[in-house]
Amino acid sequence: MWDLEDTQSEPDVRNIPIQRVGVRGVRHPFRLVDGEEGEQFTVGRASLSVYLPANVRGTHMSRFVAFLQSGADRIGSSSIGRMPAEVATLLGAEEATVEFDFPFFMVKNAPVTGVSGRVDYEASLRGHWVRGETRSEAVVRVPVTTLCPCSRNISERGAHNQRGLVCVAVEAEPLPRLEGLVRLVEAAASAELYSVLKRPDEKHVTEQAYDNPVFVEDLVRNLAQELQASPGIRRYRVEAENFESIHNHSAFAVVEG
Amino acid sequence: MWDLEDTQSEPDVRNIPIQRVGVRGVRHPFRLVDGEEGEQFTVGRASLSVYLPANVRGTHMSRFVAFLQSGADRIGSSSIGRMPAEVATLLGAEEATVEFDFPFFMVKNAPVTGVSGRVDYEASLRGHWVRGETRSEAVVRVPVTTLCPCSRNISERGAHNQRGLVCVAVEAEPLPRLEGLVRLVEAAASAELYSVLKRPDEKHVTEQAYDNPVFVEDLVRNLAQELQASPGIRRYRVEAENFESIHNHSAFAVVEG
Amino acid sequence: MWDLEDTQSEPDVRNIPIQRVGVRGVRHPFRLVDGEEGEQFTVGRASLSVYLPANVRGTHMSRFVAFLQSGADRIGSSSIGRMPAEVATLLGAEEATVEFDFPFFMVKNAPVTGVSGRVDYEASLRGHWVRGETRSEAVVRVPVTTLCPCSRNISERGAHNQRGLVCVAVEAEPLPRLEGLVRLVEAAASAELYSVLKRPDEKHVTEQAYDNPVFVEDLVRNLAQELQASPGIRRYRVEAENFESIHNHSAFAVVEG
Amino acid sequence: MWDLEDTQSEPDVRNIPIQRVGVRGVRHPFRLVDGEEGEQFTVGRASLSVYLPANVRGTHMSRFVAFLQSGADRIGSSSIGRMPAEVATLLGAEEATVEFDFPFFMVKNAPVTGVSGRVDYEASLRGHWVRGETRSEAVVRVPVTTLCPCSRNISERGAHNQRGLVCVAVEAEPLPRLEGLVRLVEAAASAELYSVLKRPDEKHVTEQAYDNPVFVEDLVRNLAQELQASPGIRRYRVEAENFESIHNHSAFAVVEG
Repeated sequence: MWDLEDTQSEPDVRNIPIQRVGVRGVRHPFRLVDGEEGEQFTVGRASLSVYLPANVRGTHMSRFVAFLQSGADRIGSSSIGRMPAEVATLLGAEEATVEFDFPFFMVKNAPVTGVSGRVDYEASLRGHWVRGETRSEAVVRVPVTTLCPCSRNISERGAHNQRGLVCVAVEAEPLPRLEGLVRLVEAAASAELYSVLKRPDEKHVTEQAYDNPVFVEDLVRNLAQELQASPGIRRYRVEAENFESIHNHSAFAVVEG
Repeated sequence: MWDLEDTQSEPDVRNIPIQRVGVRGVRHPFRLVDGEEGEQFTVGRASLSVYLPANVRGTHMSRFVAFLQSGADRIGSSSIGRMPAEVATLLGAEEATVEFDFPFFMVKNAPVTGVSGRVDYEASLRGHWVRGETRSEAVVRVPVTTLCPCSRNISERGAHNQRGLVCVAVEAEPLPRLEGLVRLVEAAASAELYSVLKRPDEKHVTEQAYDNPVFVEDLVRNLAQELQASPGIRRYRVEAENFESIHNHSAFAVVEG
Repeated sequence: MWDLEDTQSEPDVRNIPIQRVGVRGVRHPFRLVDGEEGEQFTVGRASLSVYLPANVRGTHMSRFVAFLQSGADRIGSSSIGRMPAEVATLLGAEEATVEFDFPFFMVKNAPVTGVSGRVDYEASLRGHWVRGETRSEAVVRVPVTTLCPCSRNISERGAHNQRGLVCVAVEAEPLPRLEGLVRLVEAAASAELYSVLKRPDEKHVTEQAYDNPVFVEDLVRNLAQELQASPGIRRYRVEAENFESIHNHSAFAVVEG
Repeated sequence: MWDLEDTQSEPDVRNIPIQRVGVRGVRHPFRLVDGEEGEQFTVGRASLSVYLPANVRGTHMSRFVAFLQSGADRIGSSSIGRMPAEVATLLGAEEATVEFDFPFFMVKNAPVTGVSGRVDYEASLRGHWVRGETRSEAVVRVPVTTLCPCSRNISERGAHNQRGLVCVAVEAEPLPRLEGLVRLVEAAASAELYSVLKRPDEKHVTEQAYDNPVFVEDLVRNLAQELQASPGIRRYRVEAENFESIHNHSAFAVVEG
């Protein structure tokens, strides 16, 4: 019906394979499946790419988006392990990567009054398929309270504290639940964040943070210890950043293992 | 049970009322109601605030978040008209503002092949309650293609074009559907965007844009004409920005009426 | 020499004047002149626009950038008061706006050891020329420490604190120095930020913040009081936002006068 | 004089070394030295970090900032090769990384009228010192025009084009000039960007882009060819992203060698 030139399929003589080519920043609504009871709706961003051999000029970008829109409506550990191979097949590629970045929510009870509230986190699920094998990765970005041990030790009253952001990426088989990763991070900080706190709760978290001071160094080490003890984790990367309340820059620390 | 000091309720002697005080950046999942058939899930950000009279020291921040979490799960033109008064009552305030910023999706068919695909937009719904009256506002941010009339007229072949972003805010009674506002914007541009285009579609939108060149000035005027002709619109503001393909800065234009 | 069609100068029959049309996001290096001794180099972003009457199709965008590049290399209160009229003349416009957003630095001594360090702030200078008159505005965005009075009052030890950001905009004749505005903001907060603090300094600012707890409401009121007492200020707007260390959202307050 | 506990220097028993710990996002003004004639002022962001052995609890953050403020006022290929070792010495560390991200400007003449104008780019200089050796890296981020070969081939008139962003990172000895890297990128695109273009120039770049269509795949391959032919380059990474004028997402490609 239409006989339009297929410029992308032209041969290429520059002899340079392209490691990754595809689309990025595609907004995508889906149901996140995080364990048996953890289904929830979210809106994220997708990135899909393939390896392009040296002798082909271009990939077919519209197939990535068509793939997303024709079925990627429930996403979790199992689908992220399956999708890259499907994308590779669809594009005729030897290697493919699929990644979703998205917010998600956990419901928590305030520590004293028990008032329940939803807290938001950011996460990513990534799958990479190459030579018949898939590697999957889960990432969570968790805001926490950090209270400075030095400030506490040297001051007669008070101690500077602030919001910190911890990013944990794990490559594992099977992938752990995102909620589980969040719990690990929150346990390693001075205190966790809540969305609704009444006065008795605010008193509690203030004192809890004061009683559990951590440097960014402590935070990443506490977490690394936990991850090293977790079965099934092949690789991890922990990064903590403090938006210092006494400086206009951040302190950060990274541990990989 | 707990007898903790209520610092916020202390009297204040500085004699300065605060126009707006509240919370901002609260991530919020909800069902967007955009007309009878337009229900869809999304995740946005909420901002809620009240007027604080001169003689009170502080507002009660946790009530805003509790309000959000206890019922704001379906949001549309009618709820945005109702919420600010509810917030004012809850906080004992004379004036309140509620605002949600969020992405939403429309399904479109490609212009030639008819392949269907989801396109994402950003929108806001705002309600402001004061002296017993509510004013509601709807905002859409719509990406479009703009092709430069000058470049087309002076060049022997081609014409520079680019992605532009159009922001339309309307205060109206009743509020128009977000989808309707998006359609108005897309009709005023050189071409609209799609998520999936096959080659015949790409040929079509390329030629369509070439046949409908618009400056940012044309875009805002085309839209202003349409909005002036729309019944029920009390005020509007149209802003267009072109991410110029030949410059590293943007061209922009604003019309208010 | 070149006889190319001037599409922008075509007449327009839609009968819609455009309040503002121009360029935005133009990166611009310049010497900031902030009072007699306050010269320093910076790199900011410029936005320039004019009013376009109903009967002309488009403005000439390249003249804005040419204006910037041919002389706007020293910018301060006096130039921001002069530039909009120059832009209007160059574009043949009745009304013009010029705005620069940029970072700047102040050198401070740590409160105990006296170690000197540079702290960065963001600011804007804006000039608007209409009907032969210029209105000028200066804006500073100042990071500070805020310590929660409620948390302090109800807790047996510690008090949550965090980085806050205060934005002050003033319309005045003459414009105050940016450094002076920063000092006002810092004096209204629990403590100011530094870039280099040794342990004795850290002890000092920790205790200082504990001794000066402020809600966002207190912060904006303290500042409004100072601004009301400052001669020459016609209008001001103060906005404070706290990146709460115990929540994943911000508290904010706005006062205008 | 002050005898305050040094909490950071406490021993640590968790047995986990930290790969990188330091400060990030420190705004820093400096003179960029890019070759013999390429000195210019800029304001960037610095990140400095060290390796922390398993048996020490924390690093001394204030020393990083003190280092920056006491001498890092001229930065270029030679200083970026020297600084990490200096930081390591100052912190008593075995390994250190120093990185600056900043905008810089190049003056260009418009292609036909020769009107001169400043164009802005972003760049990074990174140095990593480990086991007595420094590896240095230069990165440029260059906005370009890309015109779609497929759209051009299938359409009777016009062709969609847009702003693209190319990021090139090279590890080399000695580092190439940033200006030279920018020129390589611009030569590989459909057309380069300018800040001031008169009508004859606009005609020229419009037709030039039409005559030089490139996919993101072409762009990264063109660049990879040039980099492979450049002496002294040990490793490179090229990434191109198109902000598609017909879609609301980006196309991207990455080649490493």
